[in-house]
Amino acid sequence: MKLTKKEQSFLDEFKKISHYREASNLIAWDLRTKAPRKGIKQRSETLSYLSERLHQLQTSDRMKEFIDELRLSENPYIRRSIELVQREYDFHHKIPVEEFKAFVQFTSESESVWQEAKEKDDYSMFQPYLEKIVDYNIRFADYWGYEGHIYNAHLKHYEPGMTVDTLDGVFPKLQKDLSRLIEQVKASSFKPQIDQITVQFPKEKQEAFALHVLDQMGYDFEAGRLDETVHPFAIGINPQDVRVTTNYDEKDFRTAVFGTIHEGGHALYEQGFDPKLYGLPVCSATSMGIHESQSLFWENFIGRSKAFWNTNYSTFLTYAPESFKNLAPNEFYRSINEVKPSFIRIEADEMTYALHIMLRYEIEKGLLNGDLNVKDLPGIWNDKMKDYLGIEPSTDREGVLQDIHWAGGDFGYFPSYALGYIYGAQFKHTLEKEINIEQAIEQNELKKIKEWLNKHIHQHGSMKEPLDLLKDVTGEGLNHQYLVKYLTNKYSDIYGISLS
Amino acid sequence: MKLTKKEQSFLDEFKKISHYREASNLIAWDLRTKAPRKGIKQRSETLSYLSERLHQLQTSDRMKEFIDELRLSENPYIRRSIELVQREYDFHHKIPVEEFKAFVQFTSESESVWQEAKEKDDYSMFQPYLEKIVDYNIRFADYWGYEGHIYNAHLKHYEPGMTVDTLDGVFPKLQKDLSRLIEQVKASSFKPQIDQITVQFPKEKQEAFALHVLDQMGYDFEAGRLDETVHPFAIGINPQDVRVTTNYDEKDFRTAVFGTIHEGGHALYEQGFDPKLYGLPVCSATSMGIHESQSLFWENFIGRSKAFWNTNYSTFLTYAPESFKNLAPNEFYRSINEVKPSFIRIEADEMTYALHIMLRYEIEKGLLNGDLNVKDLPGIWNDKMKDYLGIEPSTDREGVLQDIHWAGGDFGYFPSYALGYIYGAQFKHTLEKEINIEQAIEQNELKKIKEWLNKHIHQHGSMKEPLDLLKDVTGEGLNHQYLVKYLTNKYSDIYGISLS
Repeated sequence: MKLTKKEQSFLDEFKKISHYREASNLIAWDLRTKAPRKGIKQRSETLSYLSERLHQLQTSDRMKEFIDELRLSENPYIRRSIELVQREYDFHHKIPVEEFKAFVQFTSESESVWQEAKEKDDYSMFQPYLEKIVDYNIRFADYWGYEGHIYNAHLKHYEPGMTVDTLDGVFPKLQKDLSRLIEQVKASSFKPQIDQITVQFPKEKQEAFALHVLDQMGYDFEAGRLDETVHPFAIGINPQDVRVTTNYDEKDFRTAVFGTIHEGGHALYEQGFDPKLYGLPVCSATSMGIHESQSLFWENFIGRSKAFWNTNYSTFLTYAPESFKNLAPNEFYRSINEVKPSFIRIEADEMTYALHIMLRYEIEKGLLNGDLNVKDLPGIWNDKMKDYLGIEPSTDREGVLQDIHWAGGDFGYFPSYALGYIYGAQFKHTLEKEINIEQAIEQNELKKIKEWLNKHIHQHGSMKEPLDLLKDVTGEGLNHQYLVKYLTNKYSDIYGISLS
Repeated sequence: MKLTKKEQSFLDEFKKISHYREASNLIAWDLRTKAPRKGIKQRSETLSYLSERLHQLQTSDRMKEFIDELRLSENPYIRRSIELVQREYDFHHKIPVEEFKAFVQFTSESESVWQEAKEKDDYSMFQPYLEKIVDYNIRFADYWGYEGHIYNAHLKHYEPGMTVDTLDGVFPKLQKDLSRLIEQVKASSFKPQIDQITVQFPKEKQEAFALHVLDQMGYDFEAGRLDETVHPFAIGINPQDVRVTTNYDEKDFRTAVFGTIHEGGHALYEQGFDPKLYGLPVCSATSMGIHESQSLFWENFIGRSKAFWNTNYSTFLTYAPESFKNLAPNEFYRSINEVKPSFIRIEADEMTYALHIMLRYEIEKGLLNGDLNVKDLPGIWNDKMKDYLGIEPSTDREGVLQDIHWAGGDFGYFPSYALGYIYGAQFKHTLEKEINIEQAIEQNELKKIKEWLNKHIHQHGSMKEPLDLLKDVTGEGLNHQYLVKYLTNKYSDIYGISLS
């Protein structure tokens, strides 16, 4: 890449940011996978010091100079990089320093209060904290500025270009479609037998199978590794060191196997950046939603597909306990795809998951624009659960208190989870025009799929905004109908009824 | 600890150094144990950036101010910390910056030339590099300044307070004693049967036993962990995260088991620092020699002792292959303690090891004061090998080219390996007056030994200079006779002759 002197200085400055980020990411990985208990306190202080240094670099006057001088660079990589760097700069500079510091301090306190409130199932403990967090977030939106709905000010940090208008044009329809499908599934006479698959399954065997699947997917073990953790994640420590972690439940192999495939999907995205982006701010995922589209694509469309298990079941049996041998492949396939509305989002199946998200989206919007009151949330939550999923939690622990996000100050992040699902189904629909996915799976050629995703999505890093990427790949904007169609077909087959 | 404002600022400044050091140490550990191949290049750049920042902090004007203003602090911890910080400062400031940079650059080149020269067994390739490195080291000694022998200028960086006078008063005698003992051992009729113990031994079993022994030693797994690596090491990432690594040879369990005990000994030192030193520069090992005294103490005096195997052999058999069951404990004990002069230092047994070191010490001294010429080294090396060990390498690869130290620019480090052995035997002699070591081992109370080492050595960190620590613990200065006595007794028993 030919660069001017100024552009080169900008990249040199950005390299420092990368160094701090790399060290911080390695520490974060280590804290969650390997670090011995007693060493954690001091390590956290080191992590916090490095974050502070990183933050200084991202928000320095020097960085502002680069932004001003290079925003019109003729080099498209530099121009786009400057946009990304400016986002970070604005994010912090538009909020008064003291206020932001107080917010960070407050949310850390708030997280521990939430923890206790959840344990005690006592929403009233958490309520005053959430009220203050909502106030902060309303003020922040004003500092940042926005067009249209106040929620847009938050949404853009996770899903640039996405707006409430767009979401409101899609989410309510998706909600109705999903609720309708779920009602039909509930009414079906078939009930998957989960006790057949939730049997003792040694961790080592699960790990060996998980490694086998990652390898099939084309995950590059020379540029990553698989480790154990409590809360699974994928993390790009650098573009050629993208690690996957998973959690093993010896009574339910699905946690580790589908968890690994999910995180593996995230990892393929970051392993797939074009090497010419290395060292540039654009060498990053373009949005949380696009990131999630990759993990859900692999977890659900591939990992939970009939073709995958038709092809891999006999291999799976060589790792699985003896008792699985009595289970026909199709019976197994139906069990791992059970639809069952649940209170807890992170335990939801692929039919019900997006409903959990839309519920939170509605609440977040309402809190920010003043339509809803924090004190009324438990009731609102339960009503919506009943409305969307047909079940009603009997405790706030299983309801409004279940997620950490709000306690941590996050508003605007939840939609990415559902967007990822919708994007993913749109990508799948497009891919199907070029490649027979079922056939590729049955011929053990998952790498063909990976290569398509590499070419159309991964390699671009953040060079394209998420909605532009979607348009370029699929030819259209956000469209939930592919997801609905996919679920209708898949679950008609599984439940032996004709969903409509 | 009550501190003045200035003292507190000094510790705050030092905390930054600790943060960079902690991040760098974690990266170093990861690079050698977990990092995927392709990610290493960028990670090394990050490591180098962090080292640069660390170096800036250690050699800043601000640090110089602290040194000047706090050198006479009334607080002994601060006073001593300032001494340590000043050592780093002087080390770098006394050498012209450009010259030091050139040296670092040159030694990195020199290491790769050495690598190739070793592979090709071609000393003439390496000779001009070593000549230049010797010249650098002579000039550095002048910059640093020294009393007596020029070698003292280098020695002090690894073993503060140690001098050529002291070493020359001890090493030649030790050399004669060891050579004499080895001659007698060679002449004995007993030959240990090594093929009985060098049998296939699965890595997982070796690891399980190594973990068992670390636990017996009192290694705190909540403040550390055991991992696999090519070249074993122990590393204190922070005072409560001190990790051990080992290498598994499935054809020779001794590598992993004694390697783990050795590195575990290093780790106990760093896990044993008094918590009131945390956050201070004195929270570090006082010298390389004292560090090595701890690893050799555990590896040899405990791990290779008769009492240890009398007590642990039956446990060991539960991990070991079936074939070990035909081996009587005493036969096993004699095999793991075979004395056999070898060309390669890192493969040497405990009787011959120190001779390898003294050979190098003599050469280093001679090169620095001009008594020896780099071009003559291969011959000098071989003559000394014959003289000390009675064997002569047929290639330079097995001779003068075997170690990386000189290629990396290090002079003055080797003596620490032998000093550690001598110190260790002196500590053992003192400990024996208070605790019956054999009995403690036989009663599975290794922790008693650890606690004694904690109390007398570990907890002090760098508060005492190595020779002061030695004096405080043993009541005397460097004295090789305890080591000779220990070896005489042990090997008389093993070889069934009366060594003298």
